[in-house]
Amino acid sequence: MNRITATYDIESPVGVQRAAEVLAGEQSTGTFTRLAAETDALRERSAARIENIEITGTSSTPSLPSRKTGETYERGTVTISWSLDNFGTSLPTLMSTLAGNLFELAELSAIRLVDMQLPSAFATDHPGPQFGAQGTRDFMDGHQGPVIGTIIKPSVGLNPSETAALVQTLVDAGIDFIKDDELQANGAHCPFAERVQEVTRVLNAHADKTGKRVMYAFNVTDEIDQMWRNLDVLEAHGGTCAMVCMSSVGLTGLRALRNRSPMTIHGHRAGWGIYSRSPDIGISFPVMQKLWRLAGADHLHVNGLANKFTETDDVIAQSATSVQSPVCDSGPAHLAMPVYSSGQTVWQIDPARSLLGNDDFIFCAGGGILSHPDGAGAGVIALRQAADAARNGIDIKEFARQHPELQAAVDTFSQPKIKLKRP
Amino acid sequence: MNRITATYDIESPVGVQRAAEVLAGEQSTGTFTRLAAETDALRERSAARIENIEITGTSSTPSLPSRKTGETYERGTVTISWSLDNFGTSLPTLMSTLAGNLFELAELSAIRLVDMQLPSAFATDHPGPQFGAQGTRDFMDGHQGPVIGTIIKPSVGLNPSETAALVQTLVDAGIDFIKDDELQANGAHCPFAERVQEVTRVLNAHADKTGKRVMYAFNVTDEIDQMWRNLDVLEAHGGTCAMVCMSSVGLTGLRALRNRSPMTIHGHRAGWGIYSRSPDIGISFPVMQKLWRLAGADHLHVNGLANKFTETDDVIAQSATSVQSPVCDSGPAHLAMPVYSSGQTVWQIDPARSLLGNDDFIFCAGGGILSHPDGAGAGVIALRQAADAARNGIDIKEFARQHPELQAAVDTFSQPKIKLKRP
Repeated sequence: MNRITATYDIESPVGVQRAAEVLAGEQSTGTFTRLAAETDALRERSAARIENIEITGTSSTPSLPSRKTGETYERGTVTISWSLDNFGTSLPTLMSTLAGNLFELAELSAIRLVDMQLPSAFATDHPGPQFGAQGTRDFMDGHQGPVIGTIIKPSVGLNPSETAALVQTLVDAGIDFIKDDELQANGAHCPFAERVQEVTRVLNAHADKTGKRVMYAFNVTDEIDQMWRNLDVLEAHGGTCAMVCMSSVGLTGLRALRNRSPMTIHGHRAGWGIYSRSPDIGISFPVMQKLWRLAGADHLHVNGLANKFTETDDVIAQSATSVQSPVCDSGPAHLAMPVYSSGQTVWQIDPARSLLGNDDFIFCAGGGILSHPDGAGAGVIALRQAADAARNGIDIKEFARQHPELQAAVDTFSQPKIKLKRP
Repeated sequence: MNRITATYDIESPVGVQRAAEVLAGEQSTGTFTRLAAETDALRERSAARIENIEITGTSSTPSLPSRKTGETYERGTVTISWSLDNFGTSLPTLMSTLAGNLFELAELSAIRLVDMQLPSAFATDHPGPQFGAQGTRDFMDGHQGPVIGTIIKPSVGLNPSETAALVQTLVDAGIDFIKDDELQANGAHCPFAERVQEVTRVLNAHADKTGKRVMYAFNVTDEIDQMWRNLDVLEAHGGTCAMVCMSSVGLTGLRALRNRSPMTIHGHRAGWGIYSRSPDIGISFPVMQKLWRLAGADHLHVNGLANKFTETDDVIAQSATSVQSPVCDSGPAHLAMPVYSSGQTVWQIDPARSLLGNDDFIFCAGGGILSHPDGAGAGVIALRQAADAARNGIDIKEFARQHPELQAAVDTFSQPKIKLKRP
């Protein structure tokens, strides 16, 4: 397969067929008026092709305002393909082409990029995640089971030594993984280098004492040269994970980080709501995560089941499983680890694991650990017990009867409603 | 002023006041439950503050789907501020904070970032446009008036020598500025280095022969290291302008380009529709263009009046003038040149110039030049005549009587309706 295909959910005042033609034209050889230079040979070689069209409905009002209006607005799914020769395997130009001017076309009153299939050349030309799940476990001295994590809170405001004191509490509680908040990068009150120095001192002492190496995702997000300096600081102090806000630095920033990183890259998706929030404009997570994995993210945030944000559980399920699916039909699979977070407690571990069928995920809880009635240590133990129950196919309430920490968690945290359309 | 302020247009099932509190909390020190570490001193230092709230309406249905529902959805404008100490002048962390998780909050059924005011530290800490309007003119040997430009079409499909042949036609027509299409980067059929070689040969020969140096914006968009290599190629061949798709490379990619560029940076906004298209989610251009200017763009696309896309003329007016307004209240102004394009003819020059009150803009036309009945040369002359009329406050139809090229253009291209709310 030497063509890139993209599927869009669109709505149009000029009909789905005509809108698909305009879209394909705008994003390849098309112009207002056909120019002399636009020969048949050129079109055959370089024009985008409409591969499939399905009409899904009609409405009397447009979903988004537009210059062009119609009596009705037809909705449908269109699949368009491009030759690999148009832009090769460049991720930025893939974005300009599949997610460029088309979002502004007056012939479209809604457009979401919902699926994308890439030729295997993308999988071979790009480095992908350097470590993935196994590499992450290796940095943690062969950790087994889901990685139980938490986030430093308050998000900002703690200074380096206050952060380190909280980290001490968390590692004493037996946590596997801790991350900076995405708001905490390199501010005057908590400079990156000082935070790394203070926090790694705690992590290294803990590893020396207990043999357990806790992974801490330090937020390296910044300009490229500063991110590279941050990596140097981290490496010098034995850091094993660099967190980056992918939308804030952009695709090329993520790739530049990957090019120099000797450690795992934890991909935070702050700002993702711009792409995901509206049913009428944006990009689906299964599409975007392919780009982020190709550019080198080892861990990818996927929100959590029954989260405190807005995505439905079906979207979370689709996001989490997409991260563990091969990036192309053939070539390196470039799998990443999904990171569940947002309002997570013992109740979500079993359904989160069921979606994947394995333990290769990071499960971040805040209140779900710190609000355990017997303290953070019992909170972490309860989550591991919930994971054990899930792995062995035992109902959490039944397992809790033999495991007091889990029982206390089950009694403390109310069971959330998870709404999944099972296939 | 040592605080960063952002204004959002929001809608909420829990009321605008409560939603603003959640937003400010989520984007600074807040957590579900107030932690012991979240002391009064920490909040005073690091918490985001609500500066202003205005209620603008109420509806019975939510604009965007959300987990949280209400009986009514209150809409309003809220202004929030953050201490500079939280993240300094880092543009990526500014994005993570002002345009991060908040877009996914269940307490919001609509949220657009519509305004942002930055302390002057941003203007002094960032390089800004290296050349701006005057530097652009210097590269063009002191060009006067608006820069009249066009775009290579078909967008993709021409090989390097076909591109160069078209460039020959365009420079012979007297054009000031030519740009690659955003889809044309470094594909197999038109490799960047070969295109540069063939096109600059034409440009350099034309300059030697006529004394006129035409600026060509070569699309350097790619990974960071490849963009740097592209700059080297351009510089070796006497190139004067590097075009980059800003959303495709991200903010840090733009800045990395600026750090090494000896030439003007032409900022293309392919993909902008994701931010602009919905009235209920996204970021306004006046906000985003500040970041792009701080990161170093000399030219910024602002769409055109009466364009073929979807933005209203009022949005275009606001976008174009924002690019020529100081980036902060004090410090370097970091002005950029607005680039008008999309469906532009002689008719839009006067209103486009009136918005700015000066000639420091690039005016790109495709059909507006090539479809002139007397050829591309007359097309360019007609646009210059329209600009002369605008500068001298003479009505285009009156001026056309003495200027045959303009008269032919006025007769050929239908006058578009431009709808501007004049202040």
